[in-house]
Amino acid sequence: MKKYALLILFVFPISRTAWAQSPEVLAIRKYGTQNADKMMREFAAFLAIPNIARDTVNIKKNAAFIMSMMTERGIKNVQLLAPSTAGAPPAVYGEVKVPGATQTLIFYAHYDGQPVNPAQWAPGLEPFKPQLYTGTIDKSGKNIPFPTDGQYNPDWRIYARSASDDKAGVFTILSAYEALTKNGLVPTSNLKFFFEGEEEAGSPHLNQILEKHSALLQSDLWIICDGPVHQTGRKQIVFGVRGDAHMDLTVYGPKRPLHSGHYGNWAPNPALLLAKLLASMKDDEGRVTIKGFYDDVTPLTASEKKAMQEVPSVEAQMKRELGLSTVETTGAVLNEAISVPSLNINGMQSGNVGKMASNQIPTFATAVLDLRLVLGNDWQRQQQKVVDHIKAQGYHVIDHEPTDDERAQYGKLIKVIPGEDGYNAQRTPMDLPIAQRVIKAVQTTTTDPLVLQPTSGGSLPLYLFKKYLNANTMTVPIANHDNNQHAENENIRLGNLFDGLETMTAVMRMK
Amino acid sequence: MKKYALLILFVFPISRTAWAQSPEVLAIRKYGTQNADKMMREFAAFLAIPNIARDTVNIKKNAAFIMSMMTERGIKNVQLLAPSTAGAPPAVYGEVKVPGATQTLIFYAHYDGQPVNPAQWAPGLEPFKPQLYTGTIDKSGKNIPFPTDGQYNPDWRIYARSASDDKAGVFTILSAYEALTKNGLVPTSNLKFFFEGEEEAGSPHLNQILEKHSALLQSDLWIICDGPVHQTGRKQIVFGVRGDAHMDLTVYGPKRPLHSGHYGNWAPNPALLLAKLLASMKDDEGRVTIKGFYDDVTPLTASEKKAMQEVPSVEAQMKRELGLSTVETTGAVLNEAISVPSLNINGMQSGNVGKMASNQIPTFATAVLDLRLVLGNDWQRQQQKVVDHIKAQGYHVIDHEPTDDERAQYGKLIKVIPGEDGYNAQRTPMDLPIAQRVIKAVQTTTTDPLVLQPTSGGSLPLYLFKKYLNANTMTVPIANHDNNQHAENENIRLGNLFDGLETMTAVMRMK
Repeated sequence: MKKYALLILFVFPISRTAWAQSPEVLAIRKYGTQNADKMMREFAAFLAIPNIARDTVNIKKNAAFIMSMMTERGIKNVQLLAPSTAGAPPAVYGEVKVPGATQTLIFYAHYDGQPVNPAQWAPGLEPFKPQLYTGTIDKSGKNIPFPTDGQYNPDWRIYARSASDDKAGVFTILSAYEALTKNGLVPTSNLKFFFEGEEEAGSPHLNQILEKHSALLQSDLWIICDGPVHQTGRKQIVFGVRGDAHMDLTVYGPKRPLHSGHYGNWAPNPALLLAKLLASMKDDEGRVTIKGFYDDVTPLTASEKKAMQEVPSVEAQMKRELGLSTVETTGAVLNEAISVPSLNINGMQSGNVGKMASNQIPTFATAVLDLRLVLGNDWQRQQQKVVDHIKAQGYHVIDHEPTDDERAQYGKLIKVIPGEDGYNAQRTPMDLPIAQRVIKAVQTTTTDPLVLQPTSGGSLPLYLFKKYLNANTMTVPIANHDNNQHAENENIRLGNLFDGLETMTAVMRMK
Repeated sequence: MKKYALLILFVFPISRTAWAQSPEVLAIRKYGTQNADKMMREFAAFLAIPNIARDTVNIKKNAAFIMSMMTERGIKNVQLLAPSTAGAPPAVYGEVKVPGATQTLIFYAHYDGQPVNPAQWAPGLEPFKPQLYTGTIDKSGKNIPFPTDGQYNPDWRIYARSASDDKAGVFTILSAYEALTKNGLVPTSNLKFFFEGEEEAGSPHLNQILEKHSALLQSDLWIICDGPVHQTGRKQIVFGVRGDAHMDLTVYGPKRPLHSGHYGNWAPNPALLLAKLLASMKDDEGRVTIKGFYDDVTPLTASEKKAMQEVPSVEAQMKRELGLSTVETTGAVLNEAISVPSLNINGMQSGNVGKMASNQIPTFATAVLDLRLVLGNDWQRQQQKVVDHIKAQGYHVIDHEPTDDERAQYGKLIKVIPGEDGYNAQRTPMDLPIAQRVIKAVQTTTTDPLVLQPTSGGSLPLYLFKKYLNANTMTVPIANHDNNQHAENENIRLGNLFDGLETMTAVMRMK
């Protein structure tokens, strides 16, 4: 009996727990089910193109792939929007003019992905070899071939870099437009499409692109398709993002690696120095101890506070899912934690561990810090606070490998490279009329109430759209929350792609 | 004029600053100069065989190479001494019986090397491609081919894994015996040779070899050829070693890597947890804060203290050479620092740094600790002190990847894997009559006074020789102190190899 039930689940076509009533939504749902095979194969071909922003050759291939998807769908004026800096990844642009339409929406997603370390991916997975699994690999999902009968289960996953972040966004936006036209439905707004190619590298040239092509990029609203839906599985709309800034820290030990027996306890160990420095940055309650770190924060408005209170709690679910029994910031729930500036260690290394470990005192130790910022913070001021803290720990701060003279003069030397790709936070007011209309449109696709978030914990350079185009942005994500974005084993749940089709068509058809 | 002087330096054959008067020493010196080409080419062929202890195939090749060197030199009873554990690296044994000799010396060195990470070696260098340089690569040494005229400069270096540690020992001992026979000189003691194949893996089967072959391995003294001469360049004899034990620590964050924006400040960051734990182990004066860490230490004897005082100071030289302006243990000179138990971080890692860094909260952070022990410490007791300290920091200690139940139950989880390859310290009394005779013999090879050290900072499992054979050991090293042993860019200074020839022949001919 149990086996039979499982079998039904396995072959049952695309389904969702929440059934909306709009006939248009049902038509799009049917379209997705009937065209799943074509869609999944096109998406897999897209994911197979490596997409690290600095990999110029493959970035071009991605851009060409997107242009070809646009042209096939009848999108007009398809072109690359290059920044002034030669060689930097271009954005891919296209547009659809709708007779009689009185407003214009620009759909944003990015086609580049985070750097990959293939060695860290699970056995059998490769970042740029998209593969289909019957579930998540850490919960006994099995690798299966793409089916020949066109029947895809919504709980299946595709594993690949950018399967969620953010080729899912590019692909779903373009597939939604195709679904509309194939169903004879006309968008209610003029549509523009803007797909960035170096978001994961910190969007260092987005300002140039926006400035250079500002006439082309006029609109009434940017719809940002990036990030996950709510952890409960409910659809959500996000009105802001945290800002982001990085810092690379390197502390120094002896000029050459030393035998840890012959010199252990005498020569300073840079791994210990770095450990002590990092440990000094947060107290045991997870609060950053850097002077002034929480200054400058613009408080949430009354309506933002109210929205935050209505966001369903995910504490118990997420702790269970992530195998955590405590959180870093004592007493804070997730929503509160992402409403304040953060400091995180993205990576830390000195010498070797595991089979390559050797009995040495390493010559240096290095760490990458990730600072997230909220409204009111300035990213360079936030970096400076960290530098001031490091100096207060007795370090002499340099921006280069230490010279012999510097080594002779200073007991504690640190190279600090503040990332130049930082940006500030941004929040769109939740009560804008156009924002309310987007909310209403997305709500037609689900019987569950939407989750409305004043800000995401993640970052996008949305302040640039305000600065260069005076544009408002709203983020309408589609990916599953457990997508491992930015790390090994990134994946997308298929049901989220098909749900996304409904979400995006609803926005394109909003009243 | 300057150019001319340089040229002379370049082509001048093997020379040493300290000239001893013994005619035998002069004969051996001449032999080394005249046979430099054959020696250097044989040594390079030896270094070209990879020698990581767990690389069974290549370990066998090394052993075969050594057996063939022994046989060519007329050494008898050449054989492999296998441990009881099948597949573990064998020791290579051989012997020379001398008519009328009343005592037996066993010469020890090891032919395996520390693990290598080729990516960390300087551009152009490869661990198992021995190459000749005109000096150290960090001081403008240039890569040159092996000369065709047989003229080798003593300041030249050969770069390769185990160039110093410890194929230099194996090679110099066997070349010294060859030099004696080629000069018609007969050893004054019976000689035995014992070359170990897994010293750098912690000698896990040495006990089996010594026990199984104890009859064959009887002697009056073991001469250990491993480690460097004194930092001043003076020859030294070392009467003891520190013990050694390792521990692998892994602390845990979320079960899957998380986006550091969406979850930063909420999900515990294992890199920070590890940093705080490591930081708690030492105070700012370099003193280990682990309870009882300095207990159990057997004090130095009066003669050992006296010997230590006579060791020339190297503080200023070493600080300059290593680019250090402070030392870890406030106020301690090198000799004092290595006379107490130590705790060092050999390696530390979490997430990724540099180009592979990504915006994530890593799932784990790991560190390798190296504990050095002095006489009186027990290696397992020392490991337990660290475990107790970790528990006192609020950690639940496990020996496996955490289960879901453990994750749910404990806020701070750590996997501690105490290395099973630890061993205790050992010291031979400096006033043994046979020890005094070795000192006298080595002193004939140099006009500089020998440096006599009660203990080395480094470790060898010498307590096993005492335990299984009731044997005394003395360490007579030959390598240059700046050899990068245990790390990238390992090298030997050629002059040290030729000086070593004189040292070893003098011991073989000691009165």
